[in-house]
Amino acid sequence: MMTEPLTVQQMAQRLKAADDILILCHKNPDGDTIGCAGALYHALTAMGRSAAVLCSDPIPPMYAYTRMQLFTGQFAPRLVAAVDVASIQLFGENNRMPEFSHHVNLCIDHHTGNTGYADFTLLDSTAAAAAELLYEVLMEMEAPITPQVADCLYTGLSTDTGCFRFSNTTARTHQVAAKLIEAGARVQELNTLLFDTKSRPRMEAERIARNHLEYHLEGRCALIYLTRDEIASSGVDQADLEELTSLPVSIQDVLVGVTLRQQPGGSYRVSIRTAKGVDACSIARRLGGGGHARAAGCELLGNLENAKSAVLAEVEAELDAQEKE
Amino acid sequence: MMTEPLTVQQMAQRLKAADDILILCHKNPDGDTIGCAGALYHALTAMGRSAAVLCSDPIPPMYAYTRMQLFTGQFAPRLVAAVDVASIQLFGENNRMPEFSHHVNLCIDHHTGNTGYADFTLLDSTAAAAAELLYEVLMEMEAPITPQVADCLYTGLSTDTGCFRFSNTTARTHQVAAKLIEAGARVQELNTLLFDTKSRPRMEAERIARNHLEYHLEGRCALIYLTRDEIASSGVDQADLEELTSLPVSIQDVLVGVTLRQQPGGSYRVSIRTAKGVDACSIARRLGGGGHARAAGCELLGNLENAKSAVLAEVEAELDAQEKE
Repeated sequence: MMTEPLTVQQMAQRLKAADDILILCHKNPDGDTIGCAGALYHALTAMGRSAAVLCSDPIPPMYAYTRMQLFTGQFAPRLVAAVDVASIQLFGENNRMPEFSHHVNLCIDHHTGNTGYADFTLLDSTAAAAAELLYEVLMEMEAPITPQVADCLYTGLSTDTGCFRFSNTTARTHQVAAKLIEAGARVQELNTLLFDTKSRPRMEAERIARNHLEYHLEGRCALIYLTRDEIASSGVDQADLEELTSLPVSIQDVLVGVTLRQQPGGSYRVSIRTAKGVDACSIARRLGGGGHARAAGCELLGNLENAKSAVLAEVEAELDAQEKE
Repeated sequence: MMTEPLTVQQMAQRLKAADDILILCHKNPDGDTIGCAGALYHALTAMGRSAAVLCSDPIPPMYAYTRMQLFTGQFAPRLVAAVDVASIQLFGENNRMPEFSHHVNLCIDHHTGNTGYADFTLLDSTAAAAAELLYEVLMEMEAPITPQVADCLYTGLSTDTGCFRFSNTTARTHQVAAKLIEAGARVQELNTLLFDTKSRPRMEAERIARNHLEYHLEGRCALIYLTRDEIASSGVDQADLEELTSLPVSIQDVLVGVTLRQQPGGSYRVSIRTAKGVDACSIARRLGGGGHARAAGCELLGNLENAKSAVLAEVEAELDAQEKE
């Protein structure tokens, strides 16, 4: 399967020429795929086009302000466009997704690993978020950047960069943020909602996890865990626990942060986060998992003590190997 | 006491014409006053001037990367310039500060309440950080924005805006951030240090406070507290606890977040944080304190239960009054 790469100008032309456009998000939708879908939906409808958004999973209620129309068969799609989706597998299988995800016309994405499943792809892996790239497409389309469009694009930009904290943040990211604020993006309201609002179940799960904090290997490794009973009793959503995995490595002098979450079946899902210079992926791989240099994971069977020992042994091996370098 | 207001151009001219420049920070120095002092110090020395920085309190070790020269009498100051200091009281009394703070030549600041204590003042209260304003002064001076200067200015910008999250963040803030990244500011390293690193004592104090989390008034108010014994046993610095005060109000559906910290003398320091539309200052004022619309405080004598009841009664009164509006 080969895709034809497009420039920003070419993508803008194809979108401008289209009507009855179905916009596809990836499953477990995050702020970038939702923000892009919302921005593209509002820009296209403001330009008189008919458009709607399809996602295999429900859009989390916190993103209700993106106010996009979900696809319910209100038109027969004549163009299918995916935003922030790196591969066909990421579309998911729910709703009517499989009907449309097997033939995608256009794709706008920033993931290096994009598999080229669409007929035409605009890919820029230097963009911090797909929303950063979509902003350029909308400018080229001469689409109106209304406050609603600006809110949506800002959502993608800020969520994919941890609010301009992560290493993917570039001068261009800030330049686009400046333009979106000028266009009316509501910085404080959105950031309060996106970064400073935690559910009560999430607070309870974090309280329990913090009570389980352990330091190992002379303080170079910090570990937290949650059993399936604790997760169930707190009432927290699994998705709401993702962010917890960054907690142990945020402690001063900690080089490796480990988070163990027991799954409904009993196994432990292990998340490994490392300080700069320590290879998380190498630790995870030796336990049958994988990932990135500073964020990796694996799944371990057996009880909590066995899972802990197995991880700590590999963390120690990696830290020792690194010291010898 | 009257100050003469300067434009960015006039401030740049006065700094460019000076030598043997003493730069003053405010007491309990934060990222903005330190970042500005560092940036001005490095810019001036790169331009061949002699300069040094004076602060009444020690510069926290986490800011060591600003690498500025502290004043130890190495020259007789011929110009005294204050950065991010709103009033004479904020200079503090330690080190040799009182020798110099009684006659300040230049002041660069962004606080609306600047008292005009300096001979000449560049004040712009629309700047999110004094660093945002100093960037313009340095550009006008044609000072070299080296990576070191960029790191310092970025520090002021990101700390005073909660990493571009707070309502003071404008398009201009992002435009300056973009320029600083182009000039070599190390986004990820600095943000990890400034926002994602917590000391072990801070983690322990937060663990205790979270175990004390209480919901009141049908979940509209959340409250945490720390006794002086708990603060002492955790080993945390008082300054390190400031950020905790934003925790209770970050919980979904909470309108008022209250944090009580017992002081060494036994009284309780009360921090009140509110959601948009609820007046924190009005609650604090009725308890003998004061502050801003969404962040205020007071001090209460008596035991914990009495302090809690007193605060909760006023929180309830304010929420009831607000509902009637």
